[in-house]
Amino acid sequence: EDGQLSEATRAAILELPSEAIAALLESLPVNSRLQVWALVSDDERGDVLFEMHDDARRHLIGEMEEADLRTMAARLSPQELVELNELIPEKLYSRRLKLMSIKEQTAVNTAMRFDDDQVGRNIDSDFISISENLTAQQVMRLLRQWQIPSNTDLLCLVSEDGLYAGSVQLTDLFNAHPQQQINELKLEEDPAVGAEMHMSDLADHSYQNHYAMTPVVDDAGHLLGRITSQDILGWVQDEAESQLLQQAGLSEDEDLFAPVKRSAKRRAVWLGINLCTALLASWTIGLFEATLEQVVALAILMPIVASMGGIAGSQTLTLAIRGLALGHLSSSNANIIFRKEILVGLLNGIIWALVIGTMAGLWFAKPAIGFVIGAAILVNLIFAAVSGVIIPLILDKLKIDPALSGAVILTTVTDVVGFFAFLGLGSLFLV
Amino acid sequence: EDGQLSEATRAAILELPSEAIAALLESLPVNSRLQVWALVSDDERGDVLFEMHDDARRHLIGEMEEADLRTMAARLSPQELVELNELIPEKLYSRRLKLMSIKEQTAVNTAMRFDDDQVGRNIDSDFISISENLTAQQVMRLLRQWQIPSNTDLLCLVSEDGLYAGSVQLTDLFNAHPQQQINELKLEEDPAVGAEMHMSDLADHSYQNHYAMTPVVDDAGHLLGRITSQDILGWVQDEAESQLLQQAGLSEDEDLFAPVKRSAKRRAVWLGINLCTALLASWTIGLFEATLEQVVALAILMPIVASMGGIAGSQTLTLAIRGLALGHLSSSNANIIFRKEILVGLLNGIIWALVIGTMAGLWFAKPAIGFVIGAAILVNLIFAAVSGVIIPLILDKLKIDPALSGAVILTTVTDVVGFFAFLGLGSLFLV
Repeated sequence: EDGQLSEATRAAILELPSEAIAALLESLPVNSRLQVWALVSDDERGDVLFEMHDDARRHLIGEMEEADLRTMAARLSPQELVELNELIPEKLYSRRLKLMSIKEQTAVNTAMRFDDDQVGRNIDSDFISISENLTAQQVMRLLRQWQIPSNTDLLCLVSEDGLYAGSVQLTDLFNAHPQQQINELKLEEDPAVGAEMHMSDLADHSYQNHYAMTPVVDDAGHLLGRITSQDILGWVQDEAESQLLQQAGLSEDEDLFAPVKRSAKRRAVWLGINLCTALLASWTIGLFEATLEQVVALAILMPIVASMGGIAGSQTLTLAIRGLALGHLSSSNANIIFRKEILVGLLNGIIWALVIGTMAGLWFAKPAIGFVIGAAILVNLIFAAVSGVIIPLILDKLKIDPALSGAVILTTVTDVVGFFAFLGLGSLFLV
Repeated sequence: EDGQLSEATRAAILELPSEAIAALLESLPVNSRLQVWALVSDDERGDVLFEMHDDARRHLIGEMEEADLRTMAARLSPQELVELNELIPEKLYSRRLKLMSIKEQTAVNTAMRFDDDQVGRNIDSDFISISENLTAQQVMRLLRQWQIPSNTDLLCLVSEDGLYAGSVQLTDLFNAHPQQQINELKLEEDPAVGAEMHMSDLADHSYQNHYAMTPVVDDAGHLLGRITSQDILGWVQDEAESQLLQQAGLSEDEDLFAPVKRSAKRRAVWLGINLCTALLASWTIGLFEATLEQVVALAILMPIVASMGGIAGSQTLTLAIRGLALGHLSSSNANIIFRKEILVGLLNGIIWALVIGTMAGLWFAKPAIGFVIGAAILVNLIFAAVSGVIIPLILDKLKIDPALSGAVILTTVTDVVGFFAFLGLGSLFLV
């Protein structure tokens, strides 16, 4: 039949690793997506969903028969169960949890105590912990019997009362004397972090230390698990992606093939917010209705003033946001940067005021128009510089991420100031 | 004296790790920056510069006395020499290179053969390679004598003729029989990558495989070095930062405290590009000068049409750019996404046409104005959806990164189309 997959395609798909199947599913329209999903084995489905974005997996889970869903849920790993907990029915969640080993149950319950972007939520419970009272030789013997998980370059030591007691670099075992106590090999600078830590802080931390894994402990000093560099890398990549999407008012989970109605509804919210800011700009223009009637050149040139202000402002804003993120900008040095940005705005304001003023004066054969637009550009570029520094600092103080709402607020300011300066000067000098 | 650092501050600074000193230097205005720099020891200076952005380190190097610069250059590590090669005088570069061991010289010369964003440029030559003809016991004995670098979870095997022969997971040594040949322990799926590979491809690759390091080979099969997960993480973080800056027409190396003149000059370029697009919009408005003279309400409402189009378009654009980056969007499924986005544009177009049309009609007490702006919004939102899919696909075909120039092109289109539709309909129905 036409809509069916060929034998060769089926075979090729079954060979793919789960990350590739996940990417394939997300790049397929709804119908073909369900056909490919039907090929994925019960065992692999949890793996594949784990790698997908929220919308697309919600869609697949929504289309599954109850029996299939039950089979899949019963095979989820602890990490998969945590990741998918909001998408599968409560009943299947608890049933799966009950059938896990005590160790796995603890892992799930521990992870669920933390937020998505806390270290505790993202830990991997597949790691090696060892009593701190053993000798190097005893540890080597144990390691020979165990399956050592990938990305292991540290052994975590645990004291008799079950608390985390430090970490040993795996390679240090090679140089140790067989009878040496393992806890004598402990790293001086302990690499462990608290489970409450934010993932983005850990990302910076991990770049500075030098192990493939980071042990994670709770407030009471219990060892909860570890995070590998790969986990952190995945998180950083997801974050960068999600930040780009959020700047356009989109959710990071947005599915390319989401139903039209749902997509339209979500995006409508951002359009509505934007409408409010655009209305503010229109209202400003409306104040000068009488002037515009007399000097139509003002209407023609208006967008230039607003747009130059918006661009200059967003340059300052972007630098300030990066400065805040890297810790280079704070209230202690804001003054100096403030002064510098105003000077940059002044310099570019003068240059572009001359260029645009001359062009506009020639275009409308009226030097006064050139003067008015030049002055407005100068005012708006200085104002843009001021706002570009102040807005992110204020948002940061209010604990609002300036990377998300900074640009909308800034362009509202530069639009309103630009229109007001331009049309205001126009009413004074051109009417 | 006033401008001097106190003893306590000096002592505290000297205790900091080099990453923290780098961040501190970048957050200081020029004068204090030089004072802190004077405290950094000759040995640590290379380390610190390695962690800084280009502009700030260019500034520090520019301010150094020749003798200090010579001392610092003579102590650079191979990785530091590669990173700083464009910033120090040719003569000091070659002098440092000559004084290195053969192994280090090879590392530098190898790295210099590749571009900044290729794997080959970023490799770490501090790793363990071992002849593939040894037994497990012989390897263990060697490892006991060597200093094993951090982030080592693989041993790279080399054949008799010096070619890369596969990798062994370090932990597999624990379970091996002492007399077993090391090359029998080789990983089936070889983790090595080619030195020509782009770092961003490696970042995706590394997230999928499971080692703390990735061996790097050249075309001829020689083992050049390795890349650790930490190196990749650092690169991904830098990339995300640089992408945000480039979207605002800024260089990733921009220094918060760069001289006003240099900052102004750099940003002027982006303002100039923006001016061209703004002029195009003004020119479009100019076509309807006569209409604007008669119906000033059009001038007041213009920004709303352009801005709604810009927002809707950038939402589609952002999704398309992400889709391209993740491999979810290609010419094979572009058609389906195209149709979906047009429908979303249509739906939101209808909703916002009604809302804005009603508001505008009431505002100016003239239903025809409501009709004209409603129709213009509808047209612009559909056009925005079309452009949001087509522009990134075309740029991608032309090998231009759509994340950089896509937004500028898109808003130019939505401005021009929006003004043309709105003022054109206005001339037809309102004059």
